[in-house]
Parts: sequence; C-alpha cells; structure tokens
Amino acid sequence: MSVAKNAGPFSGLLVIDLTHVLNGPFGTTMLSDLGARVVKVEPPGGGDDTREYGPFSQGRSLYFDVVNRGKESIVLDLKDKADREIFVTMVRRADVLAENYRPGVMARLGFAYDDLARINRKLVYASSSGFGQTGPLAMAPAYDTIIQAMSGIMSTTGMPDGPPTRVGTSLSDLLGGLYMFSGIASALYAREKSGRGAHVDIAMFDATLAFLEHGVMEYSATGHSLGRIGNRHPFLAPFDVFECADGHVAICCGNDHLFSQLCIALGRPDLLADTRYFDNTSRLENVDSLKKALEDVLRTRCVSHWLGTIQAAGVPVGPLLNVSEAVQHPQTRARNMLIEAGGLKMSGNPIKISGYPDPAVRPAAPALDEHGARLRDEFAPCFSAAAS
Amino acid sequence: MSVAKNAGPFSGLLVIDLTHVLNGPFGTTMLSDLGARVVKVEPPGGGDDTREYGPFSQGRSLYFDVVNRGKESIVLDLKDKADREIFVTMVRRADVLAENYRPGVMARLGFAYDDLARINRKLVYASSSGFGQTGPLAMAPAYDTIIQAMSGIMSTTGMPDGPPTRVGTSLSDLLGGLYMFSGIASALYAREKSGRGAHVDIAMFDATLAFLEHGVMEYSATGHSLGRIGNRHPFLAPFDVFECADGHVAICCGNDHLFSQLCIALGRPDLLADTRYFDNTSRLENVDSLKKALEDVLRTRCVSHWLGTIQAAGVPVGPLLNVSEAVQHPQTRARNMLIEAGGLKMSGNPIKISGYPDPAVRPAAPALDEHGARLRDEFAPCFSAAAS
Repeated sequence: MSVAKNAGPFSGLLVIDLTHVLNGPFGTTMLSDLGARVVKVEPPGGGDDTREYGPFSQGRSLYFDVVNRGKESIVLDLKDKADREIFVTMVRRADVLAENYRPGVMARLGFAYDDLARINRKLVYASSSGFGQTGPLAMAPAYDTIIQAMSGIMSTTGMPDGPPTRVGTSLSDLLGGLYMFSGIASALYAREKSGRGAHVDIAMFDATLAFLEHGVMEYSATGHSLGRIGNRHPFLAPFDVFECADGHVAICCGNDHLFSQLCIALGRPDLLADTRYFDNTSRLENVDSLKKALEDVLRTRCVSHWLGTIQAAGVPVGPLLNVSEAVQHPQTRARNMLIEAGGLKMSGNPIKISGYPDPAVRPAAPALDEHGARLRDEFAPCFSAAAS
Repeated sequence: MSVAKNAGPFSGLLVIDLTHVLNGPFGTTMLSDLGARVVKVEPPGGGDDTREYGPFSQGRSLYFDVVNRGKESIVLDLKDKADREIFVTMVRRADVLAENYRPGVMARLGFAYDDLARINRKLVYASSSGFGQTGPLAMAPAYDTIIQAMSGIMSTTGMPDGPPTRVGTSLSDLLGGLYMFSGIASALYAREKSGRGAHVDIAMFDATLAFLEHGVMEYSATGHSLGRIGNRHPFLAPFDVFECADGHVAICCGNDHLFSQLCIALGRPDLLADTRYFDNTSRLENVDSLKKALEDVLRTRCVSHWLGTIQAAGVPVGPLLNVSEAVQHPQTRARNMLIEAGGLKMSGNPIKISGYPDPAVRPAAPALDEHGARLRDEFAPCFSAAAS
C-alpha cells in the first residue's frame, strides 16, 4: 500500500467487513476513513458483485472503489472448514463485525450474533438490511428503489402536478450505511464502560422513515399525508428555487424584512404594496402568483448578476449547481471533499475531527484477495493446519 | 417528567445543547434517544424560534417537539455575567457541547472550542453549520434549500424533461445532524483512549456531497455531470417505478432471469423474444419502449393484484406508499418507528442496539426554561452569587 493508513479515532480497531454492494460498505468505509483496520471478507467466485459494476475509470470500478477505499481483502469460503477456522480466529481478535446479508443468512452459516458473542463477548456486531432483523417484512427483498417507494419519501418528492419522484441518489442505501456506522460508534463507546459488545440492527426502511420530517409532522398533526410541493418551503414564502436567464437560484426569505429587501433588489418595490404579498401568510396563499412575478424579473438576467445583486441586499441566495460544478467549487476544495484514492476522484469524509489528519489522497480499494496470503498467515488457527 | 429517561449507550453523559432550529437539534436528539442527559440552553426572548413553528398539535409545535424530545431546557443569556458563570460551570462538568450557530458567533461570545478546551480538556465540542468552519463560504447563510441547490443533489433529482427538484424533506439539514451525531460518538470513543476531547466540524454542504453517489462517480469517470433520469436505475432495466390502475409499484429486475420471470408473470412472454429487450444492455438502450410495454399491462389491474402476482414470481416488487401508509405499515409498528413523545406521534430511533430498551413512549420535549430553576441550582458557580 503506497499511501499510509491515516490515524483516526478508531485507530487500532479491527473490523471484519462482510458487507457488499452499497449500503454496508458505505458504513464500513467511514470506519476505515476514521482509522480502523477494515478487512473485507469476500466470497469465492469473483468477490463483491460491484467489482463488475460501472462506471469504470482506469480499469477500476468506481462503484466498488468509492465504498471500499482503504480496506484489505481476503477471499474466504464460509462454508469451507479450513476457511471457517480462519474466520473464527479473526472473530476472536476483532472489535467489530459488519454484515448486510438478508436476515437469516448469517444464522445459517452458524455466525449469528449469539454464536459469535460466545466466542468474543466484546464483539460489536452490526447488521444492516432493507427492513431490519424483525417484523413481517424482514425477509423481503430490499433494493433502494423499493425502500424509497415504501418509506413515503418518493410521495413527498416532486412537483405538485408531477409523479412521485425518487431522490437522485441511493438515499436509503446510504442512510442505512450511515446509521450503521453511527450505531457501531455508539456501541464501541458503550463497550468501554460495559466491557461487552452488542448487536446493532439497522434497517434502510427505518433510516428513511427517520428522515421524513415535515411528512410525519403533517401526518401527526392532521392524520393526512403532505402531498408534493415541488421546491418550495411548506410554511415560508418566497422560499424556493427560481428560474433566471441561464439557470436557477435558490432564494430564502424567512421574514418580511428579507422579502422587502428582495423586492427592492429586483426593482419591484411595488410588490410590497400588493395586499396579496403583505405578510408570510398572504404570500403563502398566493405563492404561485408571487413566484411568477419574481421569475418575470429574474428571467431577464443571468444567475451571476442576480447572485451579486441579491447577496448585496443581504438576502440568502445561492446558485443551483450540477454535480461537476459542486465538486469543483472552491468550498469543496477547501473542505477536502473531493479526494483521490487509487488515482480515482471521489467524495471525501465529512466528519472532520480536530487532532486527526484528513488526507486528500487516501489508500486505494483492494484487488480481490489482495491481502489474502498475509491475512491467512496472520489469522491461522492456533493449532497448525496440518494437525487439524 | 412522567416518562422515565431510558438507558442507552450514552447513559451518564452530560450534553450542553446550544443547537436550534432543525439541523443541530436532530443530532442531539439522537444522543438523548440513546441515553445521554441533554440540557438545551435557550436564549432569552422566547427560546428556540421553532417553538413558534407549525404544524401544531395539542397546542405544541411538532417542529420543535420532534427534535427536542427528552431534553431539559434552561434559558441563559450568554452575554450576561451571572448566566455566563452558570454556563461555564456546566462546561466544566459536561462531556459534550453541540452548537449550530453561524461560524464566529461562539468565538465572539468567548466560547470557541479553544476557549472551552482550556476549561475542560475532555470536552467533545461539535459544530454543525451550512458550509463548515473553514473555506470561502464559511460565513454564507445556509438554509436547507440553498445547500440542496448548491450541492448538486437537486440537479440529479427529478424527471429527465422536468426541472431540478428538491428532495421532499430537509435532507441537508438532517444529514448534517446525523453526521454531527456520528462525529460526536467517534470523538467520545477516542476520548476513552486519549483522555482528550476534540472539535468536531460538520458542514451540511459536505454531508450532502458525501451522498451524491452516482453523480460523483459519473463526474469522476467522464468529467461530466449525470443528468436527471427520473425514477429509474442508471445501469439496470427494468428497475423503476411503474403506474398501475390505482397507484404505483417499484419493480427491480437486476438480471435476465428476473426479467423473464416478470414477463411471464405479466402475461407478456413475447417480450422475451423481442431483440430490443434481449439483455440488460439492450433493455437500457430501449428503456422507454420497455417501460411503456410494461405499463400497458400494469395499468389494467390494481396495485394489490400486481404485488401478489409479481411477488409470487420471485421478482422484487413493492408498493409506492404515501407517508400515512408508510408510518402505519405493520413493519413500521414492528420496528417501533412511530413513537409517541408528549402525546405527539413522531418517527422513532432507527439505531437499535441489543441490551438497551427502545421505548414506544419517550419523554416529551421541554417547555421553555422548564428545568431552569433546578439547573441554576445544580450548576451554581462554586463561589456564592452574593460574594461575586
């Protein structure tokens, strides 16, 4: 490994990573980013499926590399006696085991939490799945699109006159991974006090429900669902995305003062005298005509013009950027949020903790079984293989 | 407090919570859910603004209560000498301080991380802000809509022929809060080893960039941005949301076998002989005509019919639910993801850790300064007020 492993809050910890595809690996990558040693255990016959997924760059799968950077790889057949012994030796010495198989798979291998807690009572064992380890849907297949559909998030995303809309990223996969990481960190802290590990059980479905915000509030207040309201704020106006001559800007007026500053900046002080826009309540009632009035002005000039003018008026405003523009923004560079691993560019680590490095170049994702020989040696069972 | 504080991995920890509105409070609520004692310090003149935000139920603000359940409240004027002394006494005894003021505000109060680390070197001090504590945009106003617009997530959400679309929840606010919680848990673990606290610096902008997934992969592979592709998968087909007679279903065919099962289940085995749909590559090239062919059949019957038929064929499928349906689903109940606090229904805690309770009824959010008198007594400076 040409790039040194960086120090972090989890330095010194050993993580057995049985996760695959996107959800689980996203969570364990955070452990790796924050200093843990993460050993990815892959099945024979090609390893993690995503090694074959595009997009590719320099012959490498970005899909795989992004969520496996900085890990070691060993291929183990968990149904093979000798490989199981190596695995069990790893479990004895590990701090964390993470897996995202469908519920029941680990138990059939004889490696459920209870099985492994008997071998290593300090083990933090994290399971991430679509619907969790319990409940009527525990065994249901769970792809991100299905979880987004069933959680309600799609029903609240989109234009009022348009269809329910998937969030333009695998939100439920990634949220499951981030909550799994959070649960592991919590259980590791608790272990310092109790001396015992625990089973962390995360569901992509639960994770997405926890992110519904206004949707659940509305249900709680009225018993009904909030429909789709496009890009605007449910309770404030104008607080939306608006079209300019060459793109869009987001403008957020949280109070009457900001609204009056905005109208003056746009050369439309007359709107302040219009009873339809007198206060936030009336502006919300007339939100469509207000948007049209503002866009009639905004469409006459470019985004760059309006950003300067509206910012100078002290009104919160920002451009709508595409991904290329966002990741190349000076702020992204200043925060080290576009890093390189194995020569590939990818999103960085958003958890910045003082006293630890946050390198712009991180270790690459491993080739399949890249560290197999060394790991088999390191985790050879105490009795020699010949004697068993 | 009529409902007992539950035990959790963070039991015994004292958190000073200076956060307000949505982003920070969402993060500190997770500490409260997981057992920490969280004391919300609110400014004079009404406290956290969101106490006045709707939607309301039983005279309580859901906006406030959802992200402040289980906390204590004290009003302190951090510019007043006597109140500052109480605050500093709290800092001496606290494990965590969390704040989401605009960068610079805490320093002007004399309560920057370096100031407070001198008083309590074990303090974990977490700051969450729109763009982070560093970089050219550090001081820019940051509402969720502006961060969503600038991060690129809106540019990838929506229909190919429709406008950029805001995710139907305050994604950037909530992600910032969840990453802040993750960073706090990580720093608390590290403190057990090092004996020192740290400054955790989280940006909503960074957090959203870390969730762009395919968007950044595509940029990395090609230098270009991925446009909006609606609800479908970028690399697999059919893997999308489809219209039935009375609603939508998500169907996910990750391989040829599942596609053939689907065609048979829909009574359209002829599609398997169509060269346009021969393999995944050709199906992706003809994704629009394939969608039309499938929807022509799906629109003839109800969602409930198709769920049964497609499920029986072993093809991953799920209904598109609105928020009311999602939160009332038996799976939601089985996972305890719709809880009650102070008589209000809200999303539960998705971090399930064995050995700790996950109560369906949790303590309410506090009234303003509800615990002020007791807390002023508990954290009275060592010298008596009269003598100072």
